Amino acid sequence: METMQHNHGHTDTCFECAEACERCVTACLEMGDQDSKGHDMTDCIKLCRDCADICTLCGRLDARGSEFARDFMALCAEVCEACAEECEKHASHHAHCKACAEACRKCAEECRSMSANA
Amino acid sequence: METMQHNHGHTDTCFECAEACERCVTACLEMGDQDSKGHDMTDCIKLCRDCADICTLCGRLDARGSEFARDFMALCAEVCEACAEECEKHASHHAHCKACAEACRKCAEECRSMSANA
Amino acid sequence: METMQHNHGHTDTCFECAEACERCVTACLEMGDQDSKGHDMTDCIKLCRDCADICTLCGRLDARGSEFARDFMALCAEVCEACAEECEKHASHHAHCKACAEACRKCAEECRSMSANA
Amino acid sequence: METMQHNHGHTDTCFECAEACERCVTACLEMGDQDSKGHDMTDCIKLCRDCADICTLCGRLDARGSEFARDFMALCAEVCEACAEECEKHASHHAHCKACAEACRKCAEECRSMSANA
Repeated sequence: METMQHNHGHTDTCFECAEACERCVTACLEMGDQDSKGHDMTDCIKLCRDCADICTLCGRLDARGSEFARDFMALCAEVCEACAEECEKHASHHAHCKACAEACRKCAEECRSMSANA
Repeated sequence: METMQHNHGHTDTCFECAEACERCVTACLEMGDQDSKGHDMTDCIKLCRDCADICTLCGRLDARGSEFARDFMALCAEVCEACAEECEKHASHHAHCKACAEACRKCAEECRSMSANA
Repeated sequence: METMQHNHGHTDTCFECAEACERCVTACLEMGDQDSKGHDMTDCIKLCRDCADICTLCGRLDARGSEFARDFMALCAEVCEACAEECEKHASHHAHCKACAEACRKCAEECRSMSANA
Repeated sequence: METMQHNHGHTDTCFECAEACERCVTACLEMGDQDSKGHDMTDCIKLCRDCADICTLCGRLDARGSEFARDFMALCAEVCEACAEECEKHASHHAHCKACAEACRKCAEECRSMSANA
């Protein structure tokens, strides 16, 4: 019987980021176009929408051991950084943006580090 | 500042199942069409391929609070059960099939339970 | 050399619906929370977001000949119908909602018909 | 009423490539690990699996007008080229590999061209 490593750390990080982005999109949509302080949430929604899709696929490519996983992580890091930067603007007054920004920063760091060690 | 529930249990279960399915597909492909005992792995690969896609989307619909999440979970439970049944045939001699069968059973149970409580 | 059928009609219909939904989400987001006539676009965005994901996977399951394609089509038809119904409310004043409603109706009809002929 | 461009050419190309890849994976799996001439199809299956996922997301990012679409296309071109190269090895004896190689070449060319014109 073969052995198998269960180091699913990075896939988990990607999936947690996708989950935080999904939640952030919904919460932003339910606040309306602007939050109560007049901040426009459109960019936040757009970035989280892209980030959710890209992190999900990044996690799957990593889990399957794809030969493109490293290149994909480099792109995923860029998307996560852009999304984190936007969510951080709203982090002090929206728990969903704070949670999303933290998940994006963590994912960006891991993706950067893993894509550099190719 | 609004509060937000962080009950991401079911989304996690779906994503863990997707991850186990991705790993199982790759491991089966690398064994070749048949394992060393002559078992045909084609059905296992096909079922894991579908199950990975469906569990991923199930987890995302749940995270975003989609109105279709309950109906999707009912379908996801069927797919997970079919995938578990096939992987269980190979669970005694392949660690990846055993891990996948367990993840599928857990996900099927949660999906069944949550879709019934709609 | 084997022969292969190239009947990709239904997959195309699903993908065209997904594309129309993606475009509709972006156009709605760029209008802001409400259009110039004061209609709330939040439900439209949420439904298109789900419909884009579900139609994409429906098209892929059909293309690969998945054993779950028929069941998935039945669910996809429901989602497309809900999305069409919402987009039709805005079809007279937004080209993107009109295009999306038409793509959703076409996809719903094909999915209903194909899932009934299982 | 606003006007909307319906230039969905590139999204279509991506989706057609994804469809060809899905079909190629299934056809290869149904042939078994090796075709009747003894060619190992494992790499073909793995590449088509990645290419289907990446082309699907590429088409969606393009349809939604994502700011990451150009960078994603550059990566998508690489994946399509690798998949085309593998499928071309089998194109003379498998219709599904021939169709997939052609769809991949077309998608790679468009992605290269569009990502260069950013």
